[in-house]
Amino acid sequence: MAVATRSVTDVCVAARAAARRLAALDSGAKDAALHAIADALVARTDEIVEANANDMEAGREAGLSAALLDRLMLDSARVSAIAAQVRDIAALRDPVGEVIEGFRLPNGLDVRKERVPLGVVAVVYEARPNVTIDAAALCLKSGNAIVLRGSSSAAHSNAVLAQIAAQHAPEGAIGLVEGGREALAELARQEGLIDLIIPRGGEGLKAALREVATVPVIYAASGNCHVYVDASADPDKAEAIVLNAKTQRPGVCNAAETLLVHTDAAPAFVPRVLRALRGAGVELRVDGRTRALAGELAGELLDAVEEDWDEEFLALVLAVRIVDSVEEAIEHVNAHGSGHSEAIVTADAASARTFRLGVDAACVYVNASTRFTDGGEFGMGAEIGNSTQKLHARGPIGLRELCTFKYVVEGDGHIRP
Amino acid sequence: MAVATRSVTDVCVAARAAARRLAALDSGAKDAALHAIADALVARTDEIVEANANDMEAGREAGLSAALLDRLMLDSARVSAIAAQVRDIAALRDPVGEVIEGFRLPNGLDVRKERVPLGVVAVVYEARPNVTIDAAALCLKSGNAIVLRGSSSAAHSNAVLAQIAAQHAPEGAIGLVEGGREALAELARQEGLIDLIIPRGGEGLKAALREVATVPVIYAASGNCHVYVDASADPDKAEAIVLNAKTQRPGVCNAAETLLVHTDAAPAFVPRVLRALRGAGVELRVDGRTRALAGELAGELLDAVEEDWDEEFLALVLAVRIVDSVEEAIEHVNAHGSGHSEAIVTADAASARTFRLGVDAACVYVNASTRFTDGGEFGMGAEIGNSTQKLHARGPIGLRELCTFKYVVEGDGHIRP
Repeated sequence: MAVATRSVTDVCVAARAAARRLAALDSGAKDAALHAIADALVARTDEIVEANANDMEAGREAGLSAALLDRLMLDSARVSAIAAQVRDIAALRDPVGEVIEGFRLPNGLDVRKERVPLGVVAVVYEARPNVTIDAAALCLKSGNAIVLRGSSSAAHSNAVLAQIAAQHAPEGAIGLVEGGREALAELARQEGLIDLIIPRGGEGLKAALREVATVPVIYAASGNCHVYVDASADPDKAEAIVLNAKTQRPGVCNAAETLLVHTDAAPAFVPRVLRALRGAGVELRVDGRTRALAGELAGELLDAVEEDWDEEFLALVLAVRIVDSVEEAIEHVNAHGSGHSEAIVTADAASARTFRLGVDAACVYVNASTRFTDGGEFGMGAEIGNSTQKLHARGPIGLRELCTFKYVVEGDGHIRP
Repeated sequence: MAVATRSVTDVCVAARAAARRLAALDSGAKDAALHAIADALVARTDEIVEANANDMEAGREAGLSAALLDRLMLDSARVSAIAAQVRDIAALRDPVGEVIEGFRLPNGLDVRKERVPLGVVAVVYEARPNVTIDAAALCLKSGNAIVLRGSSSAAHSNAVLAQIAAQHAPEGAIGLVEGGREALAELARQEGLIDLIIPRGGEGLKAALREVATVPVIYAASGNCHVYVDASADPDKAEAIVLNAKTQRPGVCNAAETLLVHTDAAPAFVPRVLRALRGAGVELRVDGRTRALAGELAGELLDAVEEDWDEEFLALVLAVRIVDSVEEAIEHVNAHGSGHSEAIVTADAASARTFRLGVDAACVYVNASTRFTDGGEFGMGAEIGNSTQKLHARGPIGLRELCTFKYVVEGDGHIRP
């Protein structure tokens, strides 16, 4: 089945037609297809790993970094993990048909707001070939057709993975398009065929889409996240949260990039947290007030420049600043944050409330690490990305966020007076 | 207060700053502002009517149609009605702070999904000056700042109305911009300042926005709505619903534009419904099978052409077609409808279910008129428009749809293992 050789429009037309059929499929049929895909992934592991070896070789020749090569690489363990994830998605509750709310109007009409699939979702992604299957499985489970557009660096891997998935899904439900920026622009202008595009990639991809897209886009997030340590914070909990938010997995969007410390907590807390962070190998970019409290560590610190407050380091780098109040922390977060995940550590109920209400972000944490922002952690089972925009989906994009709803209104001959 | 003389960017910057303050206002403060606006509208009725007289005079000179002049006209009764609507909006429940859902994760973290304002909403509209106040009141109630951009034909009316509203709202919360397509394009590209644009107007306005907008847009709907009369339909109820959907208010988006009749119901139903529709002054554009059943009315019918199935007549015009099954009706609706409001009249549970599941529209009616699609009818109190798109808001856009949400996650020092 030649999923990869058709034009963008052909793939989208087939997906649109498939979407009508998918919307009517019951959960049993969708889950059976997902299990068939998982089985086929395992059965055809050698073929997948072989195709991936071509991508890896091309990647090494092109001088891809070790980190990118690691994200690209598939071996039999990783293929098994991908298949297991498909089975996990099959085990989730079907969002389609959920009644979000229902009520009876004064005139006796019954109104129900029912969840239905969006239709056709396009996912544009870079490198990691496991996204091909994750995204396809989430769309299939939620009754959507999907059009995948992966990175050229993973073209061989994606072609095999998409072919396997498409073969076991309803005809047209899973499509793959190739090609450069022209193909992307073509995809982004398929009004009436594509209901939503989700880009998973860097700022360049997002900027390119923003210029050309006429179909709705949900931008999967960059995360410039903060931990604010309030005057009253328990220092042990605060240190643990800062360390976790920064170092547990520094390359992801819900990792912290800036630490804000209340001036009253700073004399005791700053020296110990800087020591702990340095001990964990974190490069520190600090303001003058932080440096003044750093004692013998001062020599190991860099001076923060204005741009540091806006940067998503995605690495073992942390900017540190002392603030005079929770209000000043909120102002800093709202001015520099990307609206992803923001944490306060505090023992004070009023500070917690002020921060919770004042911070404009998808996820606001009180006494917990920013690292929990994740569809899996939130009990959604899986996510296709993480939205920092405010319309439709904010935070993890799971099965429900891949749906829309319709109002069903039932009467007995009702007419409007 | 010179609301109308600042640049688009200045108005948006002021709105952004106001939005932060509005988000923190409690309902009492917002409702007090709304009542002050209503009082001022009534107190300054003469001034409003006088400004409107300028617009009316210019409109007559420009040769606006009687229908457009009627939409533009304000007298003291209409001003009172606008003020009453503001008080009705004040009486609605505040959507901000509603907990949409909440749950405890296995690790003990408490997650709550709380409704919060979007931030800054821009509303672009044509003619009707009452929209200035309706939209401003809905945004204020939902904690959003608003940037209004009305039609030049209502410039005098809008300037006075916006000035009155802005004077009694928090500083910057209600802004008005003027200017042609360049100003519209500038507004549509205020990323970071505007969170959402809602255009209320014709297809030309929508097309213009689609080309330039980089901020999210919810297109208020055009409605090509259908009534499908199934084989088993009660003919009295069916006739009443068809008449109501077509004639009760033909110029609005939830009025029916096409009647589909099952072939088994047609011999008895078509002659009577055509007679009733003709009696109500409806022009009928029919397919050949309908004409064959029309008897002595045949001479009064026009032949439907392919374009008639796609047109939103917004007038006393109805296209009529006979279909062989509920599936064929669904196919017609999904091919030609605009996804707004679609009705089936049937006594058969299986047909009702098939139609309800198969039709892809914001509102699907079983045995009720399409005319009920309305925020007021649905108990939302008021609406700022009606969405036929699938993301964020589908159907009436009320106070809740002017909000987003944030996840609030509370722990006790939780870190991710």
